[in-house]
Amino acid sequence: MRLSDLKISPVSPDWRQKARAYLDTLAIPRGSLGGLLDLAEQLAAIQQTLQPKVDNKVIVTMAGDHGVCDEGVSAFPQSVTPQMVDNFVRGGAAINVLSRVAGARVVIADLGIAADMSALTEAGSVLDRKVAFGTRNMAKGQAMTRKDAIAAIEAGINIAHDLIADGANLLGTGDMGIGNTTPSSAILSVLADIPVSDATGKGTGIDDAAFTHKIETIEKAIALNRPNKSDPIDVLSKIGGLEIGGIAGLILGAAQHSTAVVVDGFISTAGALIAKAIAPECAGYMIASHRSVEAGHIHMWRALGLSPLLDLNLRLGEGTGAALAMNIVESAAQVIGKVLTFEQAGVDKNA
Amino acid sequence: MRLSDLKISPVSPDWRQKARAYLDTLAIPRGSLGGLLDLAEQLAAIQQTLQPKVDNKVIVTMAGDHGVCDEGVSAFPQSVTPQMVDNFVRGGAAINVLSRVAGARVVIADLGIAADMSALTEAGSVLDRKVAFGTRNMAKGQAMTRKDAIAAIEAGINIAHDLIADGANLLGTGDMGIGNTTPSSAILSVLADIPVSDATGKGTGIDDAAFTHKIETIEKAIALNRPNKSDPIDVLSKIGGLEIGGIAGLILGAAQHSTAVVVDGFISTAGALIAKAIAPECAGYMIASHRSVEAGHIHMWRALGLSPLLDLNLRLGEGTGAALAMNIVESAAQVIGKVLTFEQAGVDKNA
Repeated sequence: MRLSDLKISPVSPDWRQKARAYLDTLAIPRGSLGGLLDLAEQLAAIQQTLQPKVDNKVIVTMAGDHGVCDEGVSAFPQSVTPQMVDNFVRGGAAINVLSRVAGARVVIADLGIAADMSALTEAGSVLDRKVAFGTRNMAKGQAMTRKDAIAAIEAGINIAHDLIADGANLLGTGDMGIGNTTPSSAILSVLADIPVSDATGKGTGIDDAAFTHKIETIEKAIALNRPNKSDPIDVLSKIGGLEIGGIAGLILGAAQHSTAVVVDGFISTAGALIAKAIAPECAGYMIASHRSVEAGHIHMWRALGLSPLLDLNLRLGEGTGAALAMNIVESAAQVIGKVLTFEQAGVDKNA
Repeated sequence: MRLSDLKISPVSPDWRQKARAYLDTLAIPRGSLGGLLDLAEQLAAIQQTLQPKVDNKVIVTMAGDHGVCDEGVSAFPQSVTPQMVDNFVRGGAAINVLSRVAGARVVIADLGIAADMSALTEAGSVLDRKVAFGTRNMAKGQAMTRKDAIAAIEAGINIAHDLIADGANLLGTGDMGIGNTTPSSAILSVLADIPVSDATGKGTGIDDAAFTHKIETIEKAIALNRPNKSDPIDVLSKIGGLEIGGIAGLILGAAQHSTAVVVDGFISTAGALIAKAIAPECAGYMIASHRSVEAGHIHMWRALGLSPLLDLNLRLGEGTGAALAMNIVESAAQVIGKVLTFEQAGVDKNA
């Protein structure tokens, strides 16, 4: 599917109302399952049923590299991106471990790793959706061409399409890419119109001097490239990342196919900002997993109008926050689908 | 085991240190799994291993009735306590549904339901640990005898003992008892020395007039019974509840057997306050599941020195918050046990 063919329906307000009315009949004090009931309502409305299914969960971890690493914005060398992808394939990373507890499958996609990944893609362990060998240094020019930005988004849309065709009923986003908090902060600053200093954090752990330099680098990239905030593709191509485009596409693809998508941390939420700017209705399909330690994250959730489920001081990415949230999402689906009503349970209502 | 024979060892500081040092070698930016790492450290220290196991989870839902319901403190009639226990046995309640997602078994214990439960206890569906047919009205005299308070705690200790002997490596608390936010608020007010008005919320959903009356009733019960705050058994017997005693015992029993215990909501945390007042070391074995909507709950966590994992606007009880938190606890155990180190994964460290 091409980006230009996308048609996302808003989540049904009728089904929301129907779900809420039904939830009010469950044999619990009204509203006493709080956020779980809100989620149950959302899932029921997305799937248009009072028995939403969350039993085929997939986390898609999108990987890409960043030319802006040349500016010294990250605590880790760029070599870590393919090394961590290798670790994902071997099953030894946090995303593997947490996805197993969540009962989710992990799919790894190469959107733009700056290394030859053919051994892993040919073995079928990593999806080959490479658009380029990393972005260019956005402090010296635009990160990617407009064509490549669209290609990354379309790759994400099509991954969602394939997974949902294959039975997935809950998607989760994830990222791997050394340096990728830098474009994420840049996207936040431009799309939410907040100062770079408020949109920027210390990523995987840089010191104060590097932090100041990171802010200056982002400011420079924005000043140089002048992204047009009313054109999300322009923003992505000038100051974004290939995996961020892939994540935006995954979210758009999930929404296109009326499937809920759990949005992970700071980088994933930058992708969500791009997705919402392309098609505002897609926000209704998003589930906010957690609030990251990364300083700008809460501004992203506010810009999206979403409240995160978890606040566990995470700042890892990979999809780990999405994995942790998935059991809560499954719990919500089970609450509406399985908890008996006052009448069914033979329990007296309020006096 | 008798309460007087209890000997709880503090959670090992050596193992905490060993676990933290090991967690710092995992192939993730240092500290980037936040609260999950704190939990992993706690589990490792409790179990004294770098491979803690969380694969046999049991939630114990303790049920009891409250004479203070005569004062009109609850939105629901007392008949709902046995009706909900019946619902638990049939598997149609929220605690059943959420425990299934958490992979936890649910054990229901009758500590003091004011109804004949023999059909369910004889069928083996409910543990018969009935100490009395409900408490007496604490607004008119003490809720139970000192002997009964000790019996309730010892019943909880022995349930923990049996479950752990049977293989359980993570316990969770839960409660069912119409009217039980009232004694819980009373316990909080006395043990944490805060005004009744700060310790009291609207429970399952009373109106403003009933709320004012609830506060007055608790103040009256405290003034009449004069519980001795330095004697937790005295507090429990005068203004507590039988299921609250059972929960305190379950926590003490878990700690006695070096087993982590997930503490549920407002009523469970009142039990945790009693447990900590009896044996302060037991707090090291507690995991705070969530922050309830019930107004006083956060004061309880502060008094215990614990930070809740979840904040989902729950106020149901039954053990539902504990069930939701259990997957996070299992995730933490898997992180320390399964995530590869930088060296094992062949990933470059910080530049």
